[in-house]
Formats: sequence, C-alpha cells, structure tokens
Amino acid sequence: MACLWPRLFTGDIGDEIFALAVKIFPICRSITGEGVRQTLRELSVHIPLEVHEVPTGTTVFDWTIPKEWNIRDAYIKNERGEKIVDFAQSNLHVMSYSVPVRRKISLGELKTHLHTLPNQPDLIPYRTSYYAENWAFCITHRKLESLSDQTYEVMIDSSLTDGHLTYGEYFHKGEIEDEFLLSAHVCHPSLANDNCSGVALLAQLAKRMTGLQTRYSYRFVFAPGTIGAITWLARNEHNSQCIKHGLVISMVGDGGGPTYKKSRRGNAKIDRAMVHSLHHSGLMPTILDFFPYGYDERQYCSPGFNLPVGSFQRSTFGEFPQYHTSADNLDFMRPEHLAQSFQLIVETLDVIENDVVYRNTMPKCEPQLGKYGLYGAIGGDREAAAANKATLWVLNLSDGRHSLLDIAERADLPFNVIRSTAQKLQQHGLLLPGHMLRETACLR
Amino acid sequence: MACLWPRLFTGDIGDEIFALAVKIFPICRSITGEGVRQTLRELSVHIPLEVHEVPTGTTVFDWTIPKEWNIRDAYIKNERGEKIVDFAQSNLHVMSYSVPVRRKISLGELKTHLHTLPNQPDLIPYRTSYYAENWAFCITHRKLESLSDQTYEVMIDSSLTDGHLTYGEYFHKGEIEDEFLLSAHVCHPSLANDNCSGVALLAQLAKRMTGLQTRYSYRFVFAPGTIGAITWLARNEHNSQCIKHGLVISMVGDGGGPTYKKSRRGNAKIDRAMVHSLHHSGLMPTILDFFPYGYDERQYCSPGFNLPVGSFQRSTFGEFPQYHTSADNLDFMRPEHLAQSFQLIVETLDVIENDVVYRNTMPKCEPQLGKYGLYGAIGGDREAAAANKATLWVLNLSDGRHSLLDIAERADLPFNVIRSTAQKLQQHGLLLPGHMLRETACLR
Amino acid sequence: MACLWPRLFTGDIGDEIFALAVKIFPICRSITGEGVRQTLRELSVHIPLEVHEVPTGTTVFDWTIPKEWNIRDAYIKNERGEKIVDFAQSNLHVMSYSVPVRRKISLGELKTHLHTLPNQPDLIPYRTSYYAENWAFCITHRKLESLSDQTYEVMIDSSLTDGHLTYGEYFHKGEIEDEFLLSAHVCHPSLANDNCSGVALLAQLAKRMTGLQTRYSYRFVFAPGTIGAITWLARNEHNSQCIKHGLVISMVGDGGGPTYKKSRRGNAKIDRAMVHSLHHSGLMPTILDFFPYGYDERQYCSPGFNLPVGSFQRSTFGEFPQYHTSADNLDFMRPEHLAQSFQLIVETLDVIENDVVYRNTMPKCEPQLGKYGLYGAIGGDREAAAANKATLWVLNLSDGRHSLLDIAERADLPFNVIRSTAQKLQQHGLLLPGHMLRETACLR
Repeated sequence: MACLWPRLFTGDIGDEIFALAVKIFPICRSITGEGVRQTLRELSVHIPLEVHEVPTGTTVFDWTIPKEWNIRDAYIKNERGEKIVDFAQSNLHVMSYSVPVRRKISLGELKTHLHTLPNQPDLIPYRTSYYAENWAFCITHRKLESLSDQTYEVMIDSSLTDGHLTYGEYFHKGEIEDEFLLSAHVCHPSLANDNCSGVALLAQLAKRMTGLQTRYSYRFVFAPGTIGAITWLARNEHNSQCIKHGLVISMVGDGGGPTYKKSRRGNAKIDRAMVHSLHHSGLMPTILDFFPYGYDERQYCSPGFNLPVGSFQRSTFGEFPQYHTSADNLDFMRPEHLAQSFQLIVETLDVIENDVVYRNTMPKCEPQLGKYGLYGAIGGDREAAAANKATLWVLNLSDGRHSLLDIAERADLPFNVIRSTAQKLQQHGLLLPGHMLRETACLR
Repeated sequence: MACLWPRLFTGDIGDEIFALAVKIFPICRSITGEGVRQTLRELSVHIPLEVHEVPTGTTVFDWTIPKEWNIRDAYIKNERGEKIVDFAQSNLHVMSYSVPVRRKISLGELKTHLHTLPNQPDLIPYRTSYYAENWAFCITHRKLESLSDQTYEVMIDSSLTDGHLTYGEYFHKGEIEDEFLLSAHVCHPSLANDNCSGVALLAQLAKRMTGLQTRYSYRFVFAPGTIGAITWLARNEHNSQCIKHGLVISMVGDGGGPTYKKSRRGNAKIDRAMVHSLHHSGLMPTILDFFPYGYDERQYCSPGFNLPVGSFQRSTFGEFPQYHTSADNLDFMRPEHLAQSFQLIVETLDVIENDVVYRNTMPKCEPQLGKYGLYGAIGGDREAAAANKATLWVLNLSDGRHSLLDIAERADLPFNVIRSTAQKLQQHGLLLPGHMLRETACLR
Repeated sequence: MACLWPRLFTGDIGDEIFALAVKIFPICRSITGEGVRQTLRELSVHIPLEVHEVPTGTTVFDWTIPKEWNIRDAYIKNERGEKIVDFAQSNLHVMSYSVPVRRKISLGELKTHLHTLPNQPDLIPYRTSYYAENWAFCITHRKLESLSDQTYEVMIDSSLTDGHLTYGEYFHKGEIEDEFLLSAHVCHPSLANDNCSGVALLAQLAKRMTGLQTRYSYRFVFAPGTIGAITWLARNEHNSQCIKHGLVISMVGDGGGPTYKKSRRGNAKIDRAMVHSLHHSGLMPTILDFFPYGYDERQYCSPGFNLPVGSFQRSTFGEFPQYHTSADNLDFMRPEHLAQSFQLIVETLDVIENDVVYRNTMPKCEPQLGKYGLYGAIGGDREAAAANKATLWVLNLSDGRHSLLDIAERADLPFNVIRSTAQKLQQHGLLLPGHMLRETACLR
C-alpha cells in the first residue's frame, strides 16, 4: 500500500528520525525536571512547540503534580575510592526520583538499595519511585555478584523540590475542528526505542505536515507518561470530545511486530484504518484488543473519556527482552524500521483523511465501462477480468452506505487502490463527488 | 477459581455425597411407587423435604399421571427349578413397569421378552415401558446365549394400580423472590451415576445452605424424569416465571467431562456463569448448545416455558459406555469427582449471587492507586504491572454498563479475583456500592 | 436430501439435459445474431418460449444495443491455398464480432490478429471484441509456432449490421405473483459447459414444471451475457421487485464443485436455502461471498437492483483449465453431473416453496408423543432417542418465530426430514397449519 501524501516522504525519513532520536537519547528524562525541558528544546529546533509548565501541587483529577526532580551526579565508591557505579556512564544507574544521599554503608544495607535483573545478568534495569520517597541504584547482576563485603560510599546529587511538570504540544490546523491526537511519552531516560523513537517520529511527522492542507486538525502531545497525559487531559477536558481519532506512539524503531492495540471502543475508525494498513503491509502484524495497562492509551481510554485512541508499536509492550533495560539502546533501533513505522502511520492517517462515501450515478446494472476507456476491450481474457475488479467493487458498493474503507475491506484491496479507482470513476461522471460521514460534531 | 462461600465446603463433601448415593443406590425406583418414596425418605434425613403425591389419572398438560407401579420379586427358573435370573440380585433385571406374569413358556417365546446388549455382552441393559403395558426381563447377552431350548418359568410379582406419582421439593428462602431452580430426576433404579449422584449432591447442597443468607431463593426439585418434571411444571406454572436461573443435575460422579449444555436461550446468565466457572476450572470442559433431548431441561426449555435452565453433567449424556447399563454402579463414581462437581456448581451459584455492577467514582483517567496502597511503588517492574491487571480492568470497565461477570469475561480472569478486587476498591471509595441488574421482576 | 417433487425427476433427467446440450453445442452463438435465434428455436421444441427482439441502437441504461453480428465462413490459407485455420472446424477460431476481412498479409501482420494460449498450447482460446471493431483468429499455440514466414490469405465472411438483440423468456405461473428468477446466458459459441449445460438444464426444468402447482411464479430468462441481462432488466424494471429469489445457472455439467456464490445481500433466503441443500448433499461444496464479477448476477445484484440472486456452478468460474477454451467441449460434461446439478437446484426450490412456520399447539412441556404413536415405546434405548430427534426439534422450535429452514439449520438435519416430520405432527394436531413468512409484497 503506497501513500497518497508523497510530500511527507521527502528526504530520508528513517535517517532523520534516527538522527533526532540519537540527539535526545543521552538526556536523563523523568516525569519532571530539566531532562524533559532539554528534550522539548531539541524538538523545538524542528517544530514551533508550545511548552507548558504546571506547578508542583496542582491537582489533576485524582493526582497532584509532584515535586520536580533533578539530578547532577551519582556514584558508588568502594573503600579504595574507586567509582564502581557511575551515573555519568549510564543514567539508568540511578532509580528515577531517588532522593539525595551521601553516606557510607555496609554491603548488606547497600543491597537493600540495589536493583538488578538476575535473569539478564549483563543488563541494567530501569526503575522509578515517583510517589514513594526512596533512593536506589540499578546495576547489572554481575556487578552485584562481584561486590565484596566492605564499606561503600553512596552519593546521589539530586534534588526534589517544588517546581513544575513540563509538556509540549504542537497543533496543525486542518479544515475542520475535529482532531487527530498523536501522543508520545517523554519521561524515560536513556531508553532508545522506549521512547526516543516515538518522540522523534512524531516530531518529524509534525515538521513535514507544516503547510500541508488536511481535513482533520492534528494535535501532537509530548508529555511524561501517566501523570503527563493525565495533566494534559485535565487541562483539555473541555476539548477532549473534539478528538475523533488518536494514536499513542511508542517503541517504533525495532524490527519486531508491528503491533496495534485497539482503542477501548474496539471498532473505532482508527481501529479499522490501522488494521487495514497493517493487513496490507506485507508484514505479520499483531492486533490486540484493548487492555487497561500499557502506555497513555490507559488514560485516553479511561471510562470517563473513552476516546478512540489506539496504540501503535513494533514489538509488543513488555514482551521483548530489551524492554526497560540498558539493552534498549541505539543499537536496538534501525532507520529502516523507523521509516517503515512512519509509513504505516501516515498510510493510516491517509485512510482517515480520505474515507469518503461516493454514490454511483448509474446504480442500475453496470455502466458500459468500455465507453469510458475503463475496460479491457478483448473479452474472455482472465487477466482483463482481474484488472477490472477494483472498478467493479467501487461501482457495486457505492450505494451511499459504504465508504471507501468499507469497500477496501470488503474487496480485500488496499485503500489507495480503491481510492484512486474512485477518483478515476468520478472524473468520468460515474460517481458523485464523495462526502465524508462526519463523526459527532465537535462542540467547544 | 476458589469459592466465596467457604461454609458450603465444611466436612468432606465428596465423601458425604458418596455416602448418601450408596444409601439410595439399591432402591428400585421407577416413575411412581415405593422406590421413589423410600428415596425421598432418605433425603428427608438431611433436609425437611416437602413430599407431594399426585393421584393416578390427574391431567398434567398433555399427559396423565399413570398407574402406580410396585414390584416385590421376579425371576426366571429353568426346568430344574433353578433361578437363572433373579430380581433380588439386580433390579435392572426387570423392565420397569412390567405387568405381573407367572407362566411357563418356551425359549422361543421367552426371547421375545428379553432385552440384552449384544455389543456389551456382560452388561444388563436398563429398559422401561411406562406407557405400553408389557413385561420383560433384561439380562446379559452371555446369559441369553447360554439358554438352552427348554421350558422356563417366568414370574414377576408386580402391581400396576391406581395410586400416586411422588416428588419432593425443598425451598431455601433468599432475600428476593427470584428463584434458582436445581432439579434432579429420581426415577432410575440401581444406576449410580444416573442419577444417585445428582440426587445426593443436591440434597447435600440443600442441607449446607440451611441458614445461609442468599440473595436468590433456591428451589430443589427431586422428581421422576419427564412425567415428574411435567407434573411439577403443571402445578407450578403460575410460579415458573420466578425462575431466573436453573440447572438440571445428573451424572456428576464420574471422572469425565465436565459437560455443560446451555439453556434454550443460549446466552442466559446461567449459561455465561457456568461456562465461566468451567473455563477457569483447569479441566477440559465440553460446552454444548441446547438440543431438545436429554433430561428434564427438555421440559423446562419447552417453548411455552423457555426457562433459563441448563444441564450440568460430567461425561456427556448417552455418550459413555456405562450409560443405562449395570456398569453404571457405585464403582463408576468417586468421592473426588463428586466433590469437584459440587465445587463447580457452587462456584456458578456464587457468580450469579454476586454479579453486581459497580461504578467507578473517578472515571476520568486512572485514580492514583499508590495513594491507596493499591499499586506497587517501584515502577518499571514487569511483575508489578501484572499484579495490577485486575485492579485496572475493574476500574476501566466499571462504567455502569459492565457487571463483574462482564469484566471477568473480558479480562479473562476468574470471577472471584475480579469480585475481591472490586470489594477492595469499594473500601477505598474508588467504586460506588454495586447494584444488581435485576432480571424481569417476579410477579406471582 | 431427497426431493419432495418426484415428478420433476421422471425420465432420465441427466440424459435429457445432455441430449439438449449436444443439440445446441455446434451453434455459433454471440451476443446477437442467428446463433442465438437458432438456439432459442431448439429450446422452443420443449417449452413455449417467448422470443424478444430488441433493435440495434436501443438504449438500455448506460448501454446501446449493438449491431447484429452474423458469420458464414472464415479461414486462413497459406501460399499453397491450403486452409490452415478453418471456421468450419471450430467456431472458436474466429474472435466473436470480428468484422469482415479478405486480404493477403505477411506473417508479421497476421500475428497481430492471432490469439493463442502459450500455457495451454493445444487449446484454442475463446475471445470476443463486441464493442471495439476488430478482427482476429484464435488458434492453438502449436499452430502459431508452426507458421512459416510467408504470405497468408485471411477471410472472414461476417456481417455487422443494424438488426436485433434476441432473448427468450418462459413464465410458469404460481399461486402468488412473487417470482423466482432462473437465468442462463446464451451468447457463448461452442463451449459446452459454459453454457450449453445451464441453458439445457433450465429448459428441461421449465418443461417438467408444466402443469405443476407451485406457490411462487417462475421466470426463466435465456439471454446473452451482460448486454442481454441488462436489456432484460431495462425492459422489466417495473417488475424487478417481484423477484424474491433467483439463481444464475452456468457450467453445471462438469464434476467439480458444486460452487454457490451468494447474492449481494449475503443472507437472502436463496442464499440460506442453497447453502443448506449443498451442506446436506454429501459433496464438498464451495460457498463464496458475493463479488461483482462473474456472470449475470453482476447485473441482478447491481446496487440499483440488489436482487436476491445467487449463482450456481460446479467448478468455480474462471478457476478450471478448460474455462473459455476449446477443451470446454462435450467430453467435459457428463449426464450424471447434470442430473446431480438438477437435483441440487430442485431441492433448493423445494426448500423455498415449503419454508413455512408452524406453531406448536402444546408449547408447555412436550406432548406425550407415545399417545400419538410418535415415540418408540421402550424407553432407555439409545436408538429410539436418535430417531425422535427431528420430532423434538420441530416441537421445540415451532414457537411462531422459526421456519422449517430455521429448524433444519439449527438441528443440522435435512429440510425434507424436518418438513415431513412437521407434516406428521400437523396430522396429529400437534402443530397448527404452517404459514409462510411473506417477503415484502410485490406491487406492480
């Protein structure tokens, strides 16, 4: 399935997404703090991002914006003063939201502040403790096993103070106020696929949409996971019913999947469009029904909102060994996977932008296609019949009750084949101009 | 799936059901007569059974209560005066409802009054002739083959006279008048699984329910097959629409199945609850759509009643070699199978008693579960996410349109896990108290 | 599944259909011309066919009746004057609607006017060029390869002049004006299965219906493919909504399939009835959802008509190697396949004629079947239970909401078993006389 928006594919999209991911990978992000701000500044190089700061203590539904966390340095030293664990080498070494500490402690006590992965002994785990004040280091299990019984110096130069939660937003205005939400979380430190890949892909998509005339308005949200999405929903509750379609984008740089997790509604247009794109991708997609854990679709699909927002990934959430470990690094992503993810997403947008209903002007019997040059002239040939299938499907189902996506699904043909066929038929006067079945209107 | 009614499981339930089945196994039951009365007297030792006597000649829908049949003795003697077939050895030897006879007859004539199982030559078949006056003996095929050409004396000391049809009923009053019907047939002579097992299981269930506070009222019916169920329905027609759920219980002591045959409605609550219990049983259940032959679900599900009554068995009706033969004896049943059947039935009752609808008090985004101690504090851990699944499912689907069973089905988690999760959430104020979606009200 | 219309099966139906097919096989048919007229004359020997002539130039929806094409002779001669391709040997040798030609041309130019099948080098293809004026010969690929570089004389003695399009119609009047349409195309030259088989089968069916009392009226249409069906629809548009069921019949003489392609509606009564007949045929049927290419179901199922017309064939359209080649000759058909196709079609008609709704007069519990002689007297016997299944299904589902076909589908028993059971039950007063669920009334 090729895309009808060629201008979105100018340049080497895979390389450009990858380059932006490389840029933001080293930053130590968390749900608040300078890491998020620095990440959003990198995105602002490409798109005029609107950055929002929400003060500590602000109530957002059942939650309260926590203190802002920042970290400068951290290490564990042995008795010889050697740094055996160093934040400068990997920001995964410190559990996110660790409170400051500078003490000498025994191995026994140290162990109560260490996280490892016994089954993946060479990897550093990613751990957080946002809402329970604590501190910890995350190290490889091999490192843990090598620690001798001595006194260690632990130092975490962090701060947990009143400040802000930061998120970024970019709005592309379309013909109508109905919106397509594209959301990525920006709270994970140096994890590449989760979610530098998603952040970079959406930033590059937003950049390339500049100046593009679209039917829907597109809203890009770059916010910390969970608390960021909740904050955004709390501040945009009045507007939420304008969101007619949406995708949460994460982990789009590896070679697995692709995976699509449906919205809570299960049969929303976004669900059908994404499934259609994946079905014709030539890949082996995994389609999952909605479940209430995962990424920010949890919030968008909470029962009080129930927005038509699905989730697109490559390997499935939590089911690949690199997930939430130091192995989720830049080597885990490849430009060609990013390009392919980009294409699948854009094809899905394309379906939703163009899913109109045409009406056959000659619904009684077939029109004489040969008159319009739309039919192979030599009858009896099997190949000619095959080539005419799309034309015949569009004519047969354009009865005012089937949209192009309905027809593509029924004919089991790619959307853009059906769409270009319909356009050709319209040029010949065989179809009335298409109209879109409007979702419930957006009242602000 | 564990049960929330632990008091039903006091004592060794399997042994106690088995012991009662052993007690009633030797009795020569038929659709009328002393055998049924004696059986009901044994049940009355455990529960205050209400015994009903309906006179011969009474019209019940298209049927008429037949004459009462009783039998004292029967045999076939050879020319040497030896009893070669003796009712005292097995009450299956006489076809049920055989008229009295005392004659000397040739082998040729005798053969016209003998039933055997050529394909199971060592087993005695079970045969009846309730509505066509006749007499016959049932013997093993080997015995038939050993008979030499001589004169035999046949004697059946039975009586077929005006009397009564007898059935027993026990009513456990619940909070509401809506009823759960539990029905077992009590007309088969010495067949153990079919249906001493079902009769004994229901009697023990009724006994243990004494004093238990339930939402539904429970009606236990112990009646002869077909004519007994028809009689009960004819005399309780005014009340039949109070039956909101029901199960016909038979053949619950063998190690096969379990098998559930759905009600005629196919999607009644009892159908969903039983399928759910079996699905989480760890066994390999067989689920059958309704068909209009089998046991008394035929009558409860006749089109004029169409009650939501399914049928629970272990091995499937008619599809195991012991069915309706002398091999359906006490060796065919085991206490552990009876206990397991009991548990599956009680779990199903438990689902129906407790299938309430809660409402999420914070439907917009997730509540901050950590505040309530309902969330693992260290984020990023795969196991913590798994443990939170039930909580997240209950919150996400408690939108006033999904009951606990709906949620359990959707989440593919056992009902009692969903139920205890909901109770915990209610304690924390995150769910409003559950209310039950009332079936159509019961108007007497 | 046996048929309830035995009189349709008098004589040796397979042989008689075959004999008629043999008769019409040699005729050189096209979408207009003497070939069609001659074919209809052969059918008129058997049924009083109404023959319609529609003048060249007549508008039928988006189409115009083309000039009438006739051909007398054609050949290709080599330099020695030998006929190397001769129309007299096979009328497939000339592309249908070839304009007249008499010229000497080089091999190179000749090749631009030759059609062959490189993958089936011994077969002559069937080709047409109805709406683009052209001429061509169709030959085996081996013949093409044997042609040496010399000058050839090509001669086609055809004419393309104002005339008529011809089609035939036969109407069997039933009790009601609602119609069952049976349609076959009569435009292919010497192709046996496609569609001498369908034409001959329908003619023999029409002949045998004479004098038969039917509920529905039956309309048989023998018309050229596409333009003929379009012409018929254009001239009978006012009447089209009387067509409550219909079948397009083609390629019914080979041993493949059977294949049924559903109407565009997908769940029309004809779809269910045909699927039911095929399901109980003991064959391995292929059931296809509607698609808008194939034979004249394309026109009947165009969105402006959307008639409940399916398509019955043996091997599936276009998917067997003989399709549209000289191998589709009389050897490809066999009387027994024609007889079987006839039977499957008649059984389907029988379902539709007799799909009534009965109502159980004793819906509360089962009636006492033994009283009516409708039940094996000796209970406990497994076989007796099996034999009673049809009776119990009919009683259980005759609640005024299920027709006989509904019951047959649910019970997975053949329609005629269910129907004869219902008739027996009605005789005993256990069912009220059946009434038919009328489709939307037919307003002329």
